[in-house]
Amino acid sequence: MKIDRLVAQIREKQSFLCVGLDTDLEKIPVHLKDTEDPLFEFNKAIIDATADYCVAYKPNLAFYEAYGVKGWRSLERTIAYLNDSYPNHFTIADAKRGDIGNTAERYAEAFYNQLGFDSVTLSPYMGSDAIEPFLKQEEKYPIVLALTSNKGAEDFQYIGEGSSTLYEHVIKTTQNYTHAERVMYVVGATKADRLQEIRVLAPKAFFLVPGVGAQGGDLKAVYDNGRNDKVGLLVNSSRGIIYASSGLDFAEAAANSAKELQQQMKSLLVS
Amino acid sequence: MKIDRLVAQIREKQSFLCVGLDTDLEKIPVHLKDTEDPLFEFNKAIIDATADYCVAYKPNLAFYEAYGVKGWRSLERTIAYLNDSYPNHFTIADAKRGDIGNTAERYAEAFYNQLGFDSVTLSPYMGSDAIEPFLKQEEKYPIVLALTSNKGAEDFQYIGEGSSTLYEHVIKTTQNYTHAERVMYVVGATKADRLQEIRVLAPKAFFLVPGVGAQGGDLKAVYDNGRNDKVGLLVNSSRGIIYASSGLDFAEAAANSAKELQQQMKSLLVS
Repeated sequence: MKIDRLVAQIREKQSFLCVGLDTDLEKIPVHLKDTEDPLFEFNKAIIDATADYCVAYKPNLAFYEAYGVKGWRSLERTIAYLNDSYPNHFTIADAKRGDIGNTAERYAEAFYNQLGFDSVTLSPYMGSDAIEPFLKQEEKYPIVLALTSNKGAEDFQYIGEGSSTLYEHVIKTTQNYTHAERVMYVVGATKADRLQEIRVLAPKAFFLVPGVGAQGGDLKAVYDNGRNDKVGLLVNSSRGIIYASSGLDFAEAAANSAKELQQQMKSLLVS
Repeated sequence: MKIDRLVAQIREKQSFLCVGLDTDLEKIPVHLKDTEDPLFEFNKAIIDATADYCVAYKPNLAFYEAYGVKGWRSLERTIAYLNDSYPNHFTIADAKRGDIGNTAERYAEAFYNQLGFDSVTLSPYMGSDAIEPFLKQEEKYPIVLALTSNKGAEDFQYIGEGSSTLYEHVIKTTQNYTHAERVMYVVGATKADRLQEIRVLAPKAFFLVPGVGAQGGDLKAVYDNGRNDKVGLLVNSSRGIIYASSGLDFAEAAANSAKELQQQMKSLLVS
């Protein structure tokens, strides 16, 4: 099972780091821009430099779609490279999809089969038929938005406060879907105080946690409040790692940033 | 303004029909499958056949993404063809996106600028910073999921029933965003009984209404309950039109299905 491999990787590498590939042509080093496929060349270098320190990679679809067919090709090459060269790493298409049954089936086809990702992030707004098609395949894991780390999270995710909030409803309801054992959740690091309650609602699920910088404080709060007996956390860092330097040393700088987070994770895991 | 052109088109054609391009290789006529770009050839024929009877086209992104780079190229050719040959038709990328600010900016770039759509469907789950980047450009219109027509809609969209439901919160809140005059909403045709209340919350907004078949009953209920003084409705039909026939006569059959709906719309508009 891919998830067992993920758990083993976390123990082996002493890391629960996910590297976010939010690759932006405006931000990558100048010397890469003349290559035939700058987005892929950048990703490949970042992946090779950071693979020892992380257990997952998460391309953010918007950054590829913004370049049309060319961007989608860079994405295809990136996931193919990951599957060929780093098959033990867990791969996440950060796509935030969510649509009715027959459309969800096509998205599952796109991300799981056509591209070959292990998982895909989903918005729960449209409910069961937007999510269940992503639960049908073994070793494939939908990651459902629960409580996000952005400012706009406050607009709707706390509705119902007092009795049960929207994000709690989302977790409770999706925990009853067929093959709920494969559901994961997005829970923002800025909501670490809520993580304990969320963990109670989904004791076995993996949480994908965006919003941690290089700050050990946040990371410790996330780990202390959010972990389960298999760790059950993937903490994502994107810009802090991949844009650590915009010079010729970008890959080395990314490795150093990733290693720094991995070292902080290691000290939490062994404590 | 593109929206003024849409309103004028509705009056001129006596139609508020949107044709959904959920184009599936498994369902298109066999004789098209040997062409170099079957998805585009199918779409082009459907568009040419139905353009007189509809005012909008809505490609469903999942159906293109399922074919990877090839599918994305078919999508690019489809929207380019629409913009070149039918510039008065309103175009909707049915993408259901929704992510934090910097990512939403990239999605807006992808759909508005790179592809050239007039509008894109969005999930409101992540709140303001997931939607406001789509409101910055003039003549570009985000269409926010409010109350959808699928079974899973009941999982979360009615939370808070009694005081104010999630979908009502979504409408009220987004009506206060900067440039809310450009926000549109997805409201399912199966919820026609709720359309009157929803219209009160957003009196000037256009509603994109999926879920109407060839049944005049539904259409009449949608029109009676949901219209405003500029009609303010785009009723979508996908499969009922584009797969009306799987034979050599597929385009003619699509035209007939579209015309049938347009005739029903006309009789409502003149009554």
